[in-house]
Amino acid sequence: MENNSTSDSYKGLACPIPISEYPTITLAHGGGGKLSHQLIEKLFVPQFHNEYLNRLHDGAVIDVEHGRIAFSTDSYVVDPIIFPGGDIGKLAVTGTINDLAMCGARPLYLSVGLIIEEGFPMEELWKIILTMKRAADESGVRIITGDTKVVDHGKADKIFINTSGIGIIPDGVNIDPQRATVGDKIILSGSIAEHGIAIMSQREGLAFETPVNSDCAALDKLVHKMLDTSKEIHVLRDPTRGGLASALIEVAQKANKGIWIEETAIPVQEAVKGACELLGLDPLYVANEGKLVAFVAQQDAAKVLSCMKSHPLGKNAVIIGEVVDDHPGFVVMQSSIGGKRIVDMLSGEQLPRIC
Amino acid sequence: MENNSTSDSYKGLACPIPISEYPTITLAHGGGGKLSHQLIEKLFVPQFHNEYLNRLHDGAVIDVEHGRIAFSTDSYVVDPIIFPGGDIGKLAVTGTINDLAMCGARPLYLSVGLIIEEGFPMEELWKIILTMKRAADESGVRIITGDTKVVDHGKADKIFINTSGIGIIPDGVNIDPQRATVGDKIILSGSIAEHGIAIMSQREGLAFETPVNSDCAALDKLVHKMLDTSKEIHVLRDPTRGGLASALIEVAQKANKGIWIEETAIPVQEAVKGACELLGLDPLYVANEGKLVAFVAQQDAAKVLSCMKSHPLGKNAVIIGEVVDDHPGFVVMQSSIGGKRIVDMLSGEQLPRIC
Repeated sequence: MENNSTSDSYKGLACPIPISEYPTITLAHGGGGKLSHQLIEKLFVPQFHNEYLNRLHDGAVIDVEHGRIAFSTDSYVVDPIIFPGGDIGKLAVTGTINDLAMCGARPLYLSVGLIIEEGFPMEELWKIILTMKRAADESGVRIITGDTKVVDHGKADKIFINTSGIGIIPDGVNIDPQRATVGDKIILSGSIAEHGIAIMSQREGLAFETPVNSDCAALDKLVHKMLDTSKEIHVLRDPTRGGLASALIEVAQKANKGIWIEETAIPVQEAVKGACELLGLDPLYVANEGKLVAFVAQQDAAKVLSCMKSHPLGKNAVIIGEVVDDHPGFVVMQSSIGGKRIVDMLSGEQLPRIC
Repeated sequence: MENNSTSDSYKGLACPIPISEYPTITLAHGGGGKLSHQLIEKLFVPQFHNEYLNRLHDGAVIDVEHGRIAFSTDSYVVDPIIFPGGDIGKLAVTGTINDLAMCGARPLYLSVGLIIEEGFPMEELWKIILTMKRAADESGVRIITGDTKVVDHGKADKIFINTSGIGIIPDGVNIDPQRATVGDKIILSGSIAEHGIAIMSQREGLAFETPVNSDCAALDKLVHKMLDTSKEIHVLRDPTRGGLASALIEVAQKANKGIWIEETAIPVQEAVKGACELLGLDPLYVANEGKLVAFVAQQDAAKVLSCMKSHPLGKNAVIIGEVVDDHPGFVVMQSSIGGKRIVDMLSGEQLPRIC
């Protein structure tokens, strides 16, 4: 995992719009006139270049084969927009890629809707475009349609990004929270709570001995490796807002099955543990942006686990629990000090604007 | 065209979340915990009820036939959020329906991404949900996936809505700005500049003798009637931001063809004319949200025009010009006082946050 969101190959690319002439985004950049067109044709199209986007119609037209497609949307309002391990652009692309991957789909196309605050630096927009391009390129996903709005200064906070995505679900893949089955092993792809802690420490100006980086990453390749290994993967979830706890509770409720997990099995980095204690947070509820949980039929659990461990994003994968006959709709955790407790859904908000 | 965005059949439906208990949106409504779930399960799902949305996965899964699909996105940041003839919810649904229709597609599925300012009244959100539901129902479009973010008070302006959409393009339909052909007649579906003037008059507190309502409407049914009538419709555009002028200039540039239009042929309501004079605006550049321009092969123009006139949203349709051999890439207008002038793209912004 790299510490910086801008890779060397994209670094140093000069902004195609002269910063000296247009140092910041103005309302006119969203007005539909000359400056809007300049933004689209200089900043966006050459970077995201592909046969669909280049036509610049009101929408993109794509050919699909008969089959199932997944469709997902997410708006990103993360604060700060640049954080250890990523930025809002990388998050917006990988986040929607992950939502599609959690449906078992191969992500193919994204739309990007930008809402920019008047006065936002052109150079920062350019950097965000580059991280979006890089993240899309790495997953082989094409950004094929978009929209830019500019609102007056003080009416938005820097930049908000919506991405919506389309992916194709391969034949034989059937991922659905309702498929969680008694006996399924629950595999977590790695240590939790890094994204939330990276954001919070940046926001609160905390410095740790070992800096915590966001785990922000696209999980599509890991997922497809897993799906190639086993047809008995029943549920996939990326535990983002609300953390691992909320993701598991949602599955328990939708499947109306009990979930049992073991606290000591759940990996948490030491630095993250320390930060959580300092901030009064429970890592179970802190957002991740590059982790997944998979519910896998018992007989296939070992081979899926081993497949995950062979991928960089799953090298710390571990079985954390299973689906049980008892307490349908509830998640029960065997705690590290020996007791059992019901893992409840958060009643208030814990971390605003984490994604 | 109705004057109000909330139809009688949806009026009086009580908000399913008790307003006395939850009068406003809080950060917790976007936090992924209990209040987030309440919002989704009480406010959104029962209204937009359909087999796809109800599964509440990270994305929606849909079956498609082999063919071409259109994919489009738009964020709506209109200010004020309620205006004569509509509100941000109606605009967000019809706007993306129209973008799909302008690709020749039959709109089928929408995603909705909400960014809400902390403190936004629950009751207003409920009304917006109802207008979205109504607009989607009227076009037979299903809202199948969504996302809600809440940002702290003062970090957004009330509510921003992104909608992305998927539609199927029927066989034999091939709409593309580059298909504009010398001789094509340019048909405008009705009078222009109403949406922009409705917004501006609301914003500036102007009162006119005859109030101007936004033309905000879904054009999909009109478009499909047209496409059933002729296979020789080459280009479709809805002249939104930047108005009719910008839409025509974009086509001229993309097709590298000349466009000639006649000013006197372009219908403008008297009240809109008056408001434009008062506000110093040229109606050619003012946004529409329920109008389209069609480029139709000469031999089919009369029958397409007559088909349009038989539809409520096209009853004032008129031929305003044609594609010509001269001045490729430019729009030239025969003005009402006899001269000719090049219609230029706006260099500054005219009307911020019009959609």
